[in-house]
Amino acid sequence: MVRKHVVLAGDLAGTVVFAIEGAMAAIHAGLDLLGVLVLSFIVALGGGVVRDLLIGATPPNAIQDWRYPLLAFAAGLVTFTFHTQVAAAPPMLLITLDAAGLAIFAATGAEKALDYKITPVNAVLMGAVTGCGGGVIRDLLLTRTPLILMADIYATAALLGAAVVVVCTRLRWSPALAMALGCVVCFAVRMLAVVYHWQLPRVG
Amino acid sequence: MVRKHVVLAGDLAGTVVFAIEGAMAAIHAGLDLLGVLVLSFIVALGGGVVRDLLIGATPPNAIQDWRYPLLAFAAGLVTFTFHTQVAAAPPMLLITLDAAGLAIFAATGAEKALDYKITPVNAVLMGAVTGCGGGVIRDLLLTRTPLILMADIYATAALLGAAVVVVCTRLRWSPALAMALGCVVCFAVRMLAVVYHWQLPRVG
Amino acid sequence: MVRKHVVLAGDLAGTVVFAIEGAMAAIHAGLDLLGVLVLSFIVALGGGVVRDLLIGATPPNAIQDWRYPLLAFAAGLVTFTFHTQVAAAPPMLLITLDAAGLAIFAATGAEKALDYKITPVNAVLMGAVTGCGGGVIRDLLLTRTPLILMADIYATAALLGAAVVVVCTRLRWSPALAMALGCVVCFAVRMLAVVYHWQLPRVG
Repeated sequence: MVRKHVVLAGDLAGTVVFAIEGAMAAIHAGLDLLGVLVLSFIVALGGGVVRDLLIGATPPNAIQDWRYPLLAFAAGLVTFTFHTQVAAAPPMLLITLDAAGLAIFAATGAEKALDYKITPVNAVLMGAVTGCGGGVIRDLLLTRTPLILMADIYATAALLGAAVVVVCTRLRWSPALAMALGCVVCFAVRMLAVVYHWQLPRVG
Repeated sequence: MVRKHVVLAGDLAGTVVFAIEGAMAAIHAGLDLLGVLVLSFIVALGGGVVRDLLIGATPPNAIQDWRYPLLAFAAGLVTFTFHTQVAAAPPMLLITLDAAGLAIFAATGAEKALDYKITPVNAVLMGAVTGCGGGVIRDLLLTRTPLILMADIYATAALLGAAVVVVCTRLRWSPALAMALGCVVCFAVRMLAVVYHWQLPRVG
Repeated sequence: MVRKHVVLAGDLAGTVVFAIEGAMAAIHAGLDLLGVLVLSFIVALGGGVVRDLLIGATPPNAIQDWRYPLLAFAAGLVTFTFHTQVAAAPPMLLITLDAAGLAIFAATGAEKALDYKITPVNAVLMGAVTGCGGGVIRDLLLTRTPLILMADIYATAALLGAAVVVVCTRLRWSPALAMALGCVVCFAVRMLAVVYHWQLPRVG
């Protein structure tokens, strides 16, 4: 039960940050108000919905619990109304909040997968799906190849954070401690990668 | 059981209209016969399949029941054969039939979600997913940003129709009556939006 | 139980071939190492994951069983390292291996759907989804309309092979024999289509 509550709190916290980012992406792409709300929902909750479908936790949290969609829509509506102010925010603030959201989603996603008896290797993948899935669906809807497949240490940070959660849980650490360390690792790797322009290798 | 039969009848009726539209979109995009049949299936049944996966009604109707795919494929094959005649139909006829299909799918989708104990807010969303999901997947397969995110009152009409179904059901109206009123509202909003060129607000 | 083991062996064999193809597509598209591994996973396992979600076999094999993702990632990593050698392989070899992978996936996919009490018509579709689903998701991620919807006898070969499996199983042949004949038919149709440039009809 403790696990469940920590997972819930993290999910709600990350939802607001990602919904704001989804709304801004929709506004930049010229979508209308409905498009803004849909992208708020999908960027915030899409990764968790895909994770839940994959681990067999149906109906997914975001479909069963009305607080998730309303929170995402509210964040989207506020962003739509105050988009000028949001756009004027320093880029580094947005990057930092995004890294925090990614860390929370990756850690809680891996934890929830373990909770559903998914094997360690796949639980790590589910952490990355939770953190990155919404952004991938956003890119598909805006018809561009997902950025995380082409550049930056983003999904990689999520994988590392999720791996820390899984390893610590296997070592019988408390879920809260395992998730906290996983969050710190994911956040640190992501921020360091941004600051030092780390990139994965590629061919040619 | 009455609910179930009304849902079934509506699903089959909307399937034919949407399958014809899917086939025409495939023909316009230069797809081959297989592509035409796949788009008939996806536009007609994709929204319902996604809804069923999300509400935990697995296997989805369209996968469990052979009548759905055969109906969609038959409609696609007839459209492929008589595409010249279909293309010559007055645009307003196609728009009207499409609005009717949207209304049926939105109403039955919301009703089915309630049947599966989904909360009211999410049941409204599931109505819109049922009505609009197939068209969104069509747009993704043809690599264009889904039209419903950019322009027109389409998903909005589905949301309103689904909301009527959910509210009436909460007021203990009979499912048939609730769905009938939801269909009328969705259809009316969609047609008024087409005639008067209503649009949602957007930034800039 | 015999069915289950044959399905497992086939899935693992096809996984390697499709993972290599996914990695090469990612490299050609200029993705980074993470993108290469993701496409290895998705091309190899995406079709099976979608099939499992649709037939209600959750969590999908590839999410429940750590051997699948590790096998796909290993094949992707080897391809990334030796991409020059893979690219120098004769095209006909790759086409032949791909046809073999398609045949295995289509046959085992149809068999697994029957195992989950899916009706014959839909089991045939599930065979094609298993064989072609990964490639469709690859094309969506690389933002191009799925090739199988536009040209070549590819999904059609999968449908024919799956249909043979379903018919033979209905005739009470042993699963192994039904799957073997389905594989042969799918493989033969695909290779004949390549050699003789068969195409499906299209409009205009």
